[in-house]
Amino acid sequence: MKRVKKPNKRTGSIWFDELNMKESKRLAFTGKVVILPVGSVEEHGEHLPLCTDTLQPEYVAREVAKKTGCLIAPTLKYGVCNSTRNFPGTISISFESLRMMVRDVLAELVRNGFNRLVVLSGHAGNTHMAALRLAAQDVLQSHGEADSQKTRIIVLSDYDFAYELKDKYSSAEDGHAGTIETSRVKAIRPELVRETRVKSYPEFPRFEVLIDSERLFPSGVIGDPTMSTADKGQMINEYAVKKITKLVEDLKQ
Amino acid sequence: MKRVKKPNKRTGSIWFDELNMKESKRLAFTGKVVILPVGSVEEHGEHLPLCTDTLQPEYVAREVAKKTGCLIAPTLKYGVCNSTRNFPGTISISFESLRMMVRDVLAELVRNGFNRLVVLSGHAGNTHMAALRLAAQDVLQSHGEADSQKTRIIVLSDYDFAYELKDKYSSAEDGHAGTIETSRVKAIRPELVRETRVKSYPEFPRFEVLIDSERLFPSGVIGDPTMSTADKGQMINEYAVKKITKLVEDLKQ
Amino acid sequence: MKRVKKPNKRTGSIWFDELNMKESKRLAFTGKVVILPVGSVEEHGEHLPLCTDTLQPEYVAREVAKKTGCLIAPTLKYGVCNSTRNFPGTISISFESLRMMVRDVLAELVRNGFNRLVVLSGHAGNTHMAALRLAAQDVLQSHGEADSQKTRIIVLSDYDFAYELKDKYSSAEDGHAGTIETSRVKAIRPELVRETRVKSYPEFPRFEVLIDSERLFPSGVIGDPTMSTADKGQMINEYAVKKITKLVEDLKQ
Amino acid sequence: MKRVKKPNKRTGSIWFDELNMKESKRLAFTGKVVILPVGSVEEHGEHLPLCTDTLQPEYVAREVAKKTGCLIAPTLKYGVCNSTRNFPGTISISFESLRMMVRDVLAELVRNGFNRLVVLSGHAGNTHMAALRLAAQDVLQSHGEADSQKTRIIVLSDYDFAYELKDKYSSAEDGHAGTIETSRVKAIRPELVRETRVKSYPEFPRFEVLIDSERLFPSGVIGDPTMSTADKGQMINEYAVKKITKLVEDLKQ
Amino acid sequence: MKRVKKPNKRTGSIWFDELNMKESKRLAFTGKVVILPVGSVEEHGEHLPLCTDTLQPEYVAREVAKKTGCLIAPTLKYGVCNSTRNFPGTISISFESLRMMVRDVLAELVRNGFNRLVVLSGHAGNTHMAALRLAAQDVLQSHGEADSQKTRIIVLSDYDFAYELKDKYSSAEDGHAGTIETSRVKAIRPELVRETRVKSYPEFPRFEVLIDSERLFPSGVIGDPTMSTADKGQMINEYAVKKITKLVEDLKQ
Amino acid sequence: MKRVKKPNKRTGSIWFDELNMKESKRLAFTGKVVILPVGSVEEHGEHLPLCTDTLQPEYVAREVAKKTGCLIAPTLKYGVCNSTRNFPGTISISFESLRMMVRDVLAELVRNGFNRLVVLSGHAGNTHMAALRLAAQDVLQSHGEADSQKTRIIVLSDYDFAYELKDKYSSAEDGHAGTIETSRVKAIRPELVRETRVKSYPEFPRFEVLIDSERLFPSGVIGDPTMSTADKGQMINEYAVKKITKLVEDLKQ
Repeated sequence: MKRVKKPNKRTGSIWFDELNMKESKRLAFTGKVVILPVGSVEEHGEHLPLCTDTLQPEYVAREVAKKTGCLIAPTLKYGVCNSTRNFPGTISISFESLRMMVRDVLAELVRNGFNRLVVLSGHAGNTHMAALRLAAQDVLQSHGEADSQKTRIIVLSDYDFAYELKDKYSSAEDGHAGTIETSRVKAIRPELVRETRVKSYPEFPRFEVLIDSERLFPSGVIGDPTMSTADKGQMINEYAVKKITKLVEDLKQ
Repeated sequence: MKRVKKPNKRTGSIWFDELNMKESKRLAFTGKVVILPVGSVEEHGEHLPLCTDTLQPEYVAREVAKKTGCLIAPTLKYGVCNSTRNFPGTISISFESLRMMVRDVLAELVRNGFNRLVVLSGHAGNTHMAALRLAAQDVLQSHGEADSQKTRIIVLSDYDFAYELKDKYSSAEDGHAGTIETSRVKAIRPELVRETRVKSYPEFPRFEVLIDSERLFPSGVIGDPTMSTADKGQMINEYAVKKITKLVEDLKQ
Repeated sequence: MKRVKKPNKRTGSIWFDELNMKESKRLAFTGKVVILPVGSVEEHGEHLPLCTDTLQPEYVAREVAKKTGCLIAPTLKYGVCNSTRNFPGTISISFESLRMMVRDVLAELVRNGFNRLVVLSGHAGNTHMAALRLAAQDVLQSHGEADSQKTRIIVLSDYDFAYELKDKYSSAEDGHAGTIETSRVKAIRPELVRETRVKSYPEFPRFEVLIDSERLFPSGVIGDPTMSTADKGQMINEYAVKKITKLVEDLKQ
Repeated sequence: MKRVKKPNKRTGSIWFDELNMKESKRLAFTGKVVILPVGSVEEHGEHLPLCTDTLQPEYVAREVAKKTGCLIAPTLKYGVCNSTRNFPGTISISFESLRMMVRDVLAELVRNGFNRLVVLSGHAGNTHMAALRLAAQDVLQSHGEADSQKTRIIVLSDYDFAYELKDKYSSAEDGHAGTIETSRVKAIRPELVRETRVKSYPEFPRFEVLIDSERLFPSGVIGDPTMSTADKGQMINEYAVKKITKLVEDLKQ
Repeated sequence: MKRVKKPNKRTGSIWFDELNMKESKRLAFTGKVVILPVGSVEEHGEHLPLCTDTLQPEYVAREVAKKTGCLIAPTLKYGVCNSTRNFPGTISISFESLRMMVRDVLAELVRNGFNRLVVLSGHAGNTHMAALRLAAQDVLQSHGEADSQKTRIIVLSDYDFAYELKDKYSSAEDGHAGTIETSRVKAIRPELVRETRVKSYPEFPRFEVLIDSERLFPSGVIGDPTMSTADKGQMINEYAVKKITKLVEDLKQ
Repeated sequence: MKRVKKPNKRTGSIWFDELNMKESKRLAFTGKVVILPVGSVEEHGEHLPLCTDTLQPEYVAREVAKKTGCLIAPTLKYGVCNSTRNFPGTISISFESLRMMVRDVLAELVRNGFNRLVVLSGHAGNTHMAALRLAAQDVLQSHGEADSQKTRIIVLSDYDFAYELKDKYSSAEDGHAGTIETSRVKAIRPELVRETRVKSYPEFPRFEVLIDSERLFPSGVIGDPTMSTADKGQMINEYAVKKITKLVEDLKQ
């Protein structure tokens, strides 16, 4: 099968679900990469909105799609939240729900002929990411060995790159709702960010499994959001976009 | 507990996930109704986008929220598609995935103190709706009898109302991607609608369970989209909004 | 494979489980349709027995079998009851239990070579019927595309037909344990029907998911059983038999 | 709560599902024992019907109910068949399906106030019986420790008693569809028994798990049905009835 | 494929997991039988250790391996305990956990090319053994019919043989932590056996499913451990070894 | 409840399953910490045995128990292997099997009164560790909020500490079966280590989910085992023991 490399001019849209039946069939044939953004509804202190983890991968996916001509599947806006699960505002789904949902979506994309897939999560918790990887693995295994060379799935968080810039923009302990995250949201949706004077560097016991982590950081913040600026956020976002653009380009080959 | 009836002026947002931790806590206390829109990624002929079933409940939810001050949780954009599952573009998830995901989201809203909930689906297939109802039932039952008088959940499709207007705007056989649905999308996102001359009135065997329904309507259309107009769509949308506004108002009391 | 159309004279029995090993093998070869009746153990007021939903499809199946020569598999006498689940007498099983059990039975009938199957339910609740349809779908899908043209499964309730006669025999609001249902049982097993003066037209909220519906109709009755007669029941039963006979005949071809 | 020991004269019926709502409530209060017969659809050679394992516990339950005034819940007519699963006529359900279904039914009987329960199976395979026992255990455990002293569940096969008479009526190797089983069916439903000259004493490897046992006894018979008589069957049935009557009487106290 | 019958001299080890990658590949090719010992952590009175059911099959497996050259996979040391589940010291896992774990291990052994497998359990409870057999059955079935002739799995308890010697060494009622079991442990690990004067012959209701069996034998003992001797144990162990050696030899052919 | 801090002299054993019923009850009362070692059966090149990941946590646990008086539960010797799953010798179990088994074991330890638990894994793969953490979380959550302050569970790999010494003993890329791991096994069970000249520094794509990783390191080795020495291993093991001893001591308070 000869693949057409150039994105179809007429179709234009980067949003998978704005295509119609015929267009989705045509684009599958061209070997399009599809990004599935995954977010969460999760407290991020009193200064950031619950959709913080959704805004970021959606922004990154959009910028990457503009550069690479890839498609973006509808964002899955709910994730598995562990340390924040008892805070107001958090909507944490179960490990199984996330795994099954993502497995189904990826499997259907493959059924449609899209076999270069990227799961891009704004939330980066361990179990959340494990669910995404297991979902991808389920799909790859159900296609047998022969096909496994054809279907390729990448699973990552944009924070895998964003936190590479901690040396430059924040302290090493910066994390959830801290300098980097607040900066990024300021660059994307500044009107959703409130003023805050809270900073917090909680100490979590390194290996203990906790179901009430909230008592260790009642503010819901890890790091220092007062150091955040939209400029920092812009730099970090651009860095993540550049890195993920590269991943998508490599996947197309 | 005395409930404040008026929506909090300062908070403003109708989008649940644009709230922050503190605001979501405050609004739970005021007895806010929350609508969870559920859509699908599904072929709707060559003239309508795959997100057709998502656009509609999102539009209706937004208009209802403006009128009632209720909140809208992030849309779940994937659903269970039976008759269209083998068409290009359709991303059908399993019954269990939908049930578990919606159960988790509703249960977490209840944990947050939101106990007046509306699941509003644009897709209206039998099994899809059964999954949503079972999810709601799971949540109600897990809260025990005492609490069941407090938590109330409504599950419906905006098509439960839209199709009440068939006499006025379409033939009785009008359905998926037909006059009414095309009109509604023309009123909401006209730029996503393509010209079409296809009309189709397939006959489905009344009781047979089919896994290859697509051979009975290869166009993916049930009804006559050529009769659609944005004006009709506007009327129908307003009707659905009015009816669902009433349901939400009743739920608040 | 050439199929013998005539039911084997010697075997005679319409009851699948009265066949022996050899006969079941022979009849599979002749292309016999098999009906699987599904009932429930469910309150039907104080005038009808708990087996009301079982009696009816068993009666219909027997009459259809006499006319068409089809076989009847052992009735599954337990179903999913929602609105009546807290009443005395109701034995409601879970959605999963029903789906799995019916899936297993249908799959085994197919393994035996019977691939024209009818699931005929006396109970007609939404989730109950969804479980039956999902079970049938599971079986069809597990046999792959090629075979799906060979195996055909119909899922219906005899109430899909019985309620078509509401105009003639009852009010439009007639339902559970009302005029039509009571009439039907009077025609089938009159000795199991008690005198009653109860009639009740409860109003259920149209879309709310309830787990305590019993408070809306403490009598367990929807409609007016005092208007019931064995004659009406006979007419209705004959109508259902005629319609389902037609379905079975069509399936045989 | 004071329990009335005498069965209610007016109600009469031994069939649980022939009761109505009110009667089932009243009888729960009197402390009635309920028997749940479990059968199978399974080859039993060319001389016995597929319902052989259903006929027997239903017969025994009926006789026990006549003597003790207990109730009989609707028979579950499908079971888990291992060694006969590939024979024509066998409808084997999965371990999970049986466990879940029986768990649901027992749990609902307990919800109704019936807490002296007997699961009486005609089929006596190891995994089948394990599923029944696990189902009972699930129900007992879900009621907590306090209540566990009140709810009592007995799980057995009538063959636990029938085979105690092997010395008297058959060889020690007699089994499935052999002398005893054929005799019993001759006593209960003689018209369903065919003449046969087949006898077979297959040797099964003692510990190997087989999924193709049928190759070791292609006749589907273990034992010598030619030695069967209705008289023997009558004796064996009476013995089982006597023994199980005793169990039910003991349970009532 | 020509199989090499002789165990590889150089490799030597009977412990599967002491092999390295290369050796395990080579030995799979030679048709080695693999024994998977399964134990339990379970009270055995105050005189025997919790690992009693693990010690015994491990001992037997080791002796059999010395004689036959077969391999021993790492022991699964947790099992399903019913009658002892509420005693101190018992660690009972669920039926599903045991079934899934054993299924996975057996399936992976088959993937590695080892297709003559023995599951040897020291614990011999009904449900525990049913889980092991179902696990084996799952593996055989997932390999399809063709292969099922190649893969062979035996599931047994060493007590299937040990209790054949009751006439010789104990009373007929001897059981859990009684004469035979205590004797066997005395022969294997005498330093773990404490002096005891407890003997106990509890009467369990024959068919009732109990979740508090401990009240019927508070000592945790069934039988008379005071009659135990290391000599008896040695004889019994040798008998079990001899019998299971025979099974393994037969499996190799 | 006053807790006795000193380990009971008489009991002595560090092996949980060498206790008897009475001793396990007594030690639960003293607040003993219990370590559950988890290993794997997994290729580790041609120079290390399949039990490599089991040997190490067992060794560490034993040394920690000697120093702290804690108990060691029977090792679970099977784990979830991803990158090595297709190699000869690997026995990889499913995510669910591991999660369920560990959940059951931890829940039973808590039932026994042991509520200071350490899961110590020699295998450190992402999904494997996620399964262990989810199992611990399941147990903590099922005990409710009140109790969650009492039950404490730590989940870690001894490699969380061993790899802290990479700067000192190996290259930064050292990993599976490399310098550190080979050194450690040389210190624990030198007779199981073969000579090898293989070293390998495979490059894995950073985010791609692979189901055939073996093609990227056919040797099954990541790092340079030729640099390994028993001395290095001894140092590393001591370091891990020291660190984990500290964790156990902290947990006891």
